[in-house]
Amino acid sequence: MTDTAVPTPQALLAQLTLEEKAALLDGSDFWHTEPVERLGIPALMVTDGPHGLRKQTEGGDHLGLDASVPATCFPPAAGLASSWDVDLLRRVGEALGRETRAEGVSVLLGPGVNMKRSPLCGRNFEYFSEDPLLAGDLAAAVVQGIQSQGVGTSLKHFAANNQETQRMTVSADVDERTLREIYLTAFERVVRTAQPWTVMCSYNRINGVYASQDPWLLTTVLREEWGFEGLVVSDWGAVDVREDGVRAGLDLEMPSSSGAGTRRVLDAVAAGTLSVDDVDRCALRVLELVGKSRPALAEPGSFDAAAHHALAREAAIQSAVLLKNDGNALPLAATGGPVAVVGEFARTPRYQGAGSSQVNPTRLDDALGALRERFAGAREVTFAAGFVPEDEEVQPGLVAEAVAHAAAAEVVVLFLGLPAAYESEGYDREHTNLPPAQLDLLDRVVAANPNTVVVLANGSVVNLEPWWDAVPAVLEGWLGGQAGGLAVADLLSGAANPSGRLAETIPLHYRDNPTVGNFPGEHGHVRYGEGLLIGYRWYDARSLPVAAAFGHGLSYTTFDYSGLELVAGDTGLDVHVTVRNSGAVAGSEVVQVYVADTESTVFRPEQELKGFARVTLEPGESREVVVTLDQRAFAFWHDVARRWVVEGGEFGIRVGSSSRDIRLARTVELPGDEVGLPLAVDSEAEQWLAHPVVGGRVRDALRGTPWMEMLFDPRNGQMMRAIPLQRLTRFPGFPLPEEDLAQLVTDANA
Amino acid sequence: MTDTAVPTPQALLAQLTLEEKAALLDGSDFWHTEPVERLGIPALMVTDGPHGLRKQTEGGDHLGLDASVPATCFPPAAGLASSWDVDLLRRVGEALGRETRAEGVSVLLGPGVNMKRSPLCGRNFEYFSEDPLLAGDLAAAVVQGIQSQGVGTSLKHFAANNQETQRMTVSADVDERTLREIYLTAFERVVRTAQPWTVMCSYNRINGVYASQDPWLLTTVLREEWGFEGLVVSDWGAVDVREDGVRAGLDLEMPSSSGAGTRRVLDAVAAGTLSVDDVDRCALRVLELVGKSRPALAEPGSFDAAAHHALAREAAIQSAVLLKNDGNALPLAATGGPVAVVGEFARTPRYQGAGSSQVNPTRLDDALGALRERFAGAREVTFAAGFVPEDEEVQPGLVAEAVAHAAAAEVVVLFLGLPAAYESEGYDREHTNLPPAQLDLLDRVVAANPNTVVVLANGSVVNLEPWWDAVPAVLEGWLGGQAGGLAVADLLSGAANPSGRLAETIPLHYRDNPTVGNFPGEHGHVRYGEGLLIGYRWYDARSLPVAAAFGHGLSYTTFDYSGLELVAGDTGLDVHVTVRNSGAVAGSEVVQVYVADTESTVFRPEQELKGFARVTLEPGESREVVVTLDQRAFAFWHDVARRWVVEGGEFGIRVGSSSRDIRLARTVELPGDEVGLPLAVDSEAEQWLAHPVVGGRVRDALRGTPWMEMLFDPRNGQMMRAIPLQRLTRFPGFPLPEEDLAQLVTDANA
Repeated sequence: MTDTAVPTPQALLAQLTLEEKAALLDGSDFWHTEPVERLGIPALMVTDGPHGLRKQTEGGDHLGLDASVPATCFPPAAGLASSWDVDLLRRVGEALGRETRAEGVSVLLGPGVNMKRSPLCGRNFEYFSEDPLLAGDLAAAVVQGIQSQGVGTSLKHFAANNQETQRMTVSADVDERTLREIYLTAFERVVRTAQPWTVMCSYNRINGVYASQDPWLLTTVLREEWGFEGLVVSDWGAVDVREDGVRAGLDLEMPSSSGAGTRRVLDAVAAGTLSVDDVDRCALRVLELVGKSRPALAEPGSFDAAAHHALAREAAIQSAVLLKNDGNALPLAATGGPVAVVGEFARTPRYQGAGSSQVNPTRLDDALGALRERFAGAREVTFAAGFVPEDEEVQPGLVAEAVAHAAAAEVVVLFLGLPAAYESEGYDREHTNLPPAQLDLLDRVVAANPNTVVVLANGSVVNLEPWWDAVPAVLEGWLGGQAGGLAVADLLSGAANPSGRLAETIPLHYRDNPTVGNFPGEHGHVRYGEGLLIGYRWYDARSLPVAAAFGHGLSYTTFDYSGLELVAGDTGLDVHVTVRNSGAVAGSEVVQVYVADTESTVFRPEQELKGFARVTLEPGESREVVVTLDQRAFAFWHDVARRWVVEGGEFGIRVGSSSRDIRLARTVELPGDEVGLPLAVDSEAEQWLAHPVVGGRVRDALRGTPWMEMLFDPRNGQMMRAIPLQRLTRFPGFPLPEEDLAQLVTDANA
Repeated sequence: MTDTAVPTPQALLAQLTLEEKAALLDGSDFWHTEPVERLGIPALMVTDGPHGLRKQTEGGDHLGLDASVPATCFPPAAGLASSWDVDLLRRVGEALGRETRAEGVSVLLGPGVNMKRSPLCGRNFEYFSEDPLLAGDLAAAVVQGIQSQGVGTSLKHFAANNQETQRMTVSADVDERTLREIYLTAFERVVRTAQPWTVMCSYNRINGVYASQDPWLLTTVLREEWGFEGLVVSDWGAVDVREDGVRAGLDLEMPSSSGAGTRRVLDAVAAGTLSVDDVDRCALRVLELVGKSRPALAEPGSFDAAAHHALAREAAIQSAVLLKNDGNALPLAATGGPVAVVGEFARTPRYQGAGSSQVNPTRLDDALGALRERFAGAREVTFAAGFVPEDEEVQPGLVAEAVAHAAAAEVVVLFLGLPAAYESEGYDREHTNLPPAQLDLLDRVVAANPNTVVVLANGSVVNLEPWWDAVPAVLEGWLGGQAGGLAVADLLSGAANPSGRLAETIPLHYRDNPTVGNFPGEHGHVRYGEGLLIGYRWYDARSLPVAAAFGHGLSYTTFDYSGLELVAGDTGLDVHVTVRNSGAVAGSEVVQVYVADTESTVFRPEQELKGFARVTLEPGESREVVVTLDQRAFAFWHDVARRWVVEGGEFGIRVGSSSRDIRLARTVELPGDEVGLPLAVDSEAEQWLAHPVVGGRVRDALRGTPWMEMLFDPRNGQMMRAIPLQRLTRFPGFPLPEEDLAQLVTDANA
C-alpha cells in the first residue's frame, strides 16, 4: 500500500458520522486508539517509556503497570540530562524510535520535561533538570531522534506537574511570569524546535483549572503562540469534564473511558453546549496522527539489541558525574592491592525508577561483574553486600563482613543508593537521606579503610553532607539503565573519563531548598512561592552554600578557558571562547554560558543558563566553541505587556565550567524593546507626568500650583509621584478634576 | 449640656436628607468630618500620630505634612514594641488620649499593626513586630489606653499594607490561611479586645481588590466575624470607586474629596446601583462616632507635659534592647577615665521617623547632655561628631577628631544610626546597611580604642554583621522619642537596667530574609511567597543563623527558669513557670511562650509565640508567672473548612528568654476539633473508602474485583488511593459507574 492510496485525514473526517468522530476522541482500551474498520482507520498503539519502550503484553492489568516486552533500558532522564549532550540524546532517541517502530507502536509516551522544583518529587528521576533551557534542549533532541524513525512522542506532563502528592487534584498556584519563564519554557523549546507528534496534558490544576480542560494552556499558548501542530492526549485518567476538555483542545482521552467520554461529548453536542466543529477539530487531529503513523506500521523494521546495549553503556558513561576526587583517588590503578567492592547495588543494580516508566530490559549488567572482568589477573576484587537495599535496619553480619573486606583491601568501592521504594511515580519522598543502614555501613567501612570511594545509584539527589568529608571521591552514577554497571566499571578503571555535569543542584541540606513550606502544599493547593527562584537561581540569590553546584562535574583531566569574545551574529550574540585540555588524558568539557541582567526594573535571577556546548579534546588540544544567544536569552516575561521583553542596558555574559565556577566574564550593552504600556485613570502620577502624549497637559494644569512643588519636593516628591493621579484629583484643591482624566486616557492610548 | 439632651444617632439619621447623609460620608477638609449645623452635628477633628499627636496648625499644606502643635513624642512602635510591656503601652495610650482630648481632637489615627514582612519596609519604624500576637496585644493596650480618655483610635492600615513601594496600587497576593494567621491576626486581636472606634483601610489591593472596596475584608471579616462596631475610614486618598466602598463598608472618605465622593454616591443611588440602606448604614456610623466624641469635646481637659515627658523617658528605657554586652562592658563605671562620646546622633537625636507620624515634640533631650550631667564631676565626657548624618561621604576632619578623642578615652560610646532620609513613609529602604561614612568611622574609632560601645538609633533593623565582632557591646535604642537621650544615659550609666526584647529578628544578612525575590513586587503585584514564614518562623524553618533572634535582649542581671507546669484552666491551658533574678541588680525579664505543633496534616511553623509576660524582680527574688494559652494558640486556619481548627495530638510548649533561648519545654496532648469535610465526586479514592456514610457501599462495589487489590497493593496502593474516584470510574472495567457517584455524594453530605 502506498501513501497516495490512503485518503487524507480531511477526506476521512468527511466520511465519519458524528458518533464515529466522538468515539475517535476516546481510547479503545488501555493502550490503543479507536479504530474505524469500515474506513481502514487502524487502532494505534501508544506505550509508556521515556527511557525505554514499555509495551505491555496482552492481558496486562487494568492500570497498565505489569510486565512488558523486553526493550533496551537507557538511563532515565536524570542521568541522560547530566550528559548535557544533545548529540547523545538524539542517538538515544533514534534507538528508542527504532524499538518503538519495531514493536508496532506509534507513539512513545515521553519525554517528561517537568522541572525539578523540589528534591522530594518522587518522579524527579524521569525529569531532566531544574533549568528549563537545559531540559528543553535535551528533550528536543530525544524527540527529534525518536520521530526520525517515523514514530511519535508525547511531551509530558503539560504543565506544572512538579510533584506526585495529590497530583490528580492539586492546583499549582503560580504567577504567569514564573510559569512562562520556568515551567513552560522547556515545553516551548521542544514544541518550537522538534514538533512532538503529541503533547500529554497533566493531571493537576494550574491556578485552579485542570490542565486537561484549560483552553489557555492547550490552545492559546500551545497552539496559537508556540505553533504546536499535533494532538493533545490526556495523561491516563486526567479527564475531569470531557466536553470541557474537547472545547479546550484536549483531543484524545486515554485510556478508554469505556464509552463514558463519548457519551458526554455526544450529549453536549445534543444540548448545544459543544459544537460539532470542536469535535471535528479533535477528531481530525486523531486522524492526522493515524496518517503520520501509517508508514512505520507498514514497515516496522527491527533493531540491533547489542548495538542498543552499547549505546546504553555510552549513555550511562556520559550520565555519571564525578562529584569529588580528592588526591586523584580515581581512576583506580590498573594494578595493585585488593579492591573491596561493597554494597548490594554493585551486584544487584538499581538502574531505573518505579511506575509507568519501568522497562523490562533486554540485558542487565552489574558493576561487580564488570569490575571483576576489568581487573581479572591484575587486581583482586572482593565483594561484600553490606546491606539489604529495602531494609532500613542494619544487618550486623553483612556489616562485619564488609568491614573485614574493607580492612583487607587497598581501596574500597562502596556502592550506595536509594532503595527502589524511595522514589517512584505516585508519591513523593519524605527526605533526601540515604537509608540509615547504608549510612551506618559507610561509617564503619570508612573507619576500617579511609581510602573508600563512593558510587551512588539514585534517581533524585541525596543528602551528601553527613559523609562528604569522610571519603576522597564520589561518583554520582544516577540510575544508569541496563548497562550502568559496565559504565561504572569503565569510569572507575579509567577506561572512560567522567564528563557528566549536574543538571540540578545538590543542596547542602534539604531545609535550604526553595520549596520549604511550599511543598507539597495542602488542601488541594501548592503555592509556587519561590517564583523564578528554582534550583540554582535560589541558592545564588541567597548566597547559600551547596553540596554540589548546578553544572558541576569533575574530569580526569583539566580544561583551560581563554579568549572570550562577544560578536553580534546573524541570529543573536555569538559567544566565542577557546577551551584547551590542559591535562594528560582525553576528556569532554561542558562549556556553560550564563546571562545576568545586572540592572532591571523587574526582579531577575542572579544568572541564568542560556547556552552550553560539549567539547571533547585530546590532551593539549584546543578548540574554539561558539554559543549563540538569541533575543530570548535576555528577555523576561512582562506581566502587563504580556509578552517577552528585553530591557535595554548592560548584561553580564559569564562562561564557566559550572554555575559556581565561572572562568571568564564580559558585559554587553544591548538595545531594549519598546514597551508602550497603556495609561489608566489610576496610573501613578509619575507615569502621567512622563507620558509622551498627555504629560504636557497634566504639567500645564499643575504649573504654578503648590502641587507641582510637592510632586517634585526633595523630601516627599517620590511618595507624591507614586500616588495615582485619580487619587490626587480627590485631594482638596487639586487643579485637575477627576472627570477630565477619562478623556486624557483616551487621548494617551489612542 | 448633658448627654441625655443629645438626640441618638438613629434619631439624627432620621432627620437627615439623602444629600446630607451622603455628605457625611466625605470629609469636610483635610482633618475634619462634615458637620450638619442645623442639627448641631459638629465636625470632628481627626489627626495623625500613633506615638504622639500631630495636630496641624491652621492653613497646613494640602497633604498635611507640615508643622503641628507641640505634643509629647513617645518612641515610635518599633521601640515601644520592644518593651513587650502591655502595662506601659496602656499608660502611653492614656497619655496620648489626654493630649488628644486636650487639643479637641476626637480620633488619633493609630496605632498601625501591619506586619514587618521585609526589613526594607520604609514604615517599619511605626509598626510593632513580625509577630501578629505580639503586635496585636501591644496595640490593643495602646487602643485601650487612648480610648479610656474618651477619644478614639484608628487601627491601621487594614490590611496587608506591608510596604511603601507602589502602596497605592500594589496587590498583596496572599492566600487566605497566611492572611488569617499572619496578616489579619493583629487586627483581629485589637478589634476583639479593644474595639477601636475606627479602623483605617489601607491603600493597597489584596488579591486584586482594593482594601477600600473589599466587602469580604470590611464587612464579612471585620464586622461579622470579629464583631467590629465602629467606623471604617479610608487612608488619606485610598478611595478608588467611592460607591463600591460604601457598599463594601467603607463609611468615611478622608480627606475631603471636595464633593466628588458625595456626587458619586448620589449618582449611584439615583442609578439604583447603590441602596439608600447602604448610605444610611455608613452615615449612622459617622453619627455614632460623633456621639461617642461629644463628651470629650465638651470637656477637653489638659495634660501635664512634664509628666508625659517622664513617661516618654520610661518608655524609651523599656524600648531599648541590649543586643550584646561582652565582659560586662556596660554599664559604664560611675567613676574612671574619660568617656568619649562620638557620633552626631548623641548631640542631635534621631528620635522619630518621617511622614504622617512626625510629631512636633514638647521638649527634646539629647544623650550627650544627659551623659555629661550624669557623669558631672565623676568622669570627663568628651564629644566628637564623627559624621554628618545625611552625608554618606566620609568627613576626614570629623573622623580625625573622633579618633583622637577615642584614643584618649578609657571608653568610647559611639552613636550610630540611620539618617532620617533612610526610613520614611512613602518609600522603602534599598538596603539595611548603615551609611558608609559611619561604617568607616566605626572602623577607625575601634582601631583607636577597642573598648567602644555602640548605641544605635534606627527605626528598622540594620546590618550588624560587618562590625558585630569588633565591639564588646551594642545597645539598640531604636527611635527613642523626645526623651530617648535621657533613657540612653540612664541605661549606659546603669541607672536603669535594659529590659527590651527584640520584636523582630535581626537577620545576619539581608539576603537571608524571607522576602528575597518577593519584595516589593513588580507591575502591581507582590507575591507573599513565603506564606506563614514571616520573621523568626522563616529563620527557624531553615535553621538560618541570625544576628539577633526574635525575643532576644540582655540585662545587667540574669534570670533562672524553673518549675514549668501545664495546668488545664478555665479559659485554656495555663503555663506556670517560676523566674528568679539570679544576678546582683533589679531587672525585668520577658517570659516567652512558644507553641509547636509537632505533627500535623498541614504545614506549620516550627514554633510560634502564643503568650508572654513581663516580670520585674529584685536580686534573688522569685515569682511564678502564669501565661494562659487559649484554643486559638493551637489552631490553624483550615482552608477548606474555612475556620480555625485545632488538630488533636501532641503540642510542644516551649518557655524561654528568646525564640532561640528556650529554657524549659514540655509536651501536652490535646483533643482536636472535628472537621467533617464534604465529599465530592472528584474526592480521592482514599476519602471515599474511609467515608463513614458511603465508604461501605464503595467497598462493597469493589469487593472481589482486581481493583480492591490494586487499591491496597503494597507497591502502588498509595498512588491508587490518591486517584479521585471519578477518575477511576472511567478506567476500563471499573465496577462502579460514574453516574452513581452523584447520589453517593448526596447521601454522604446529607
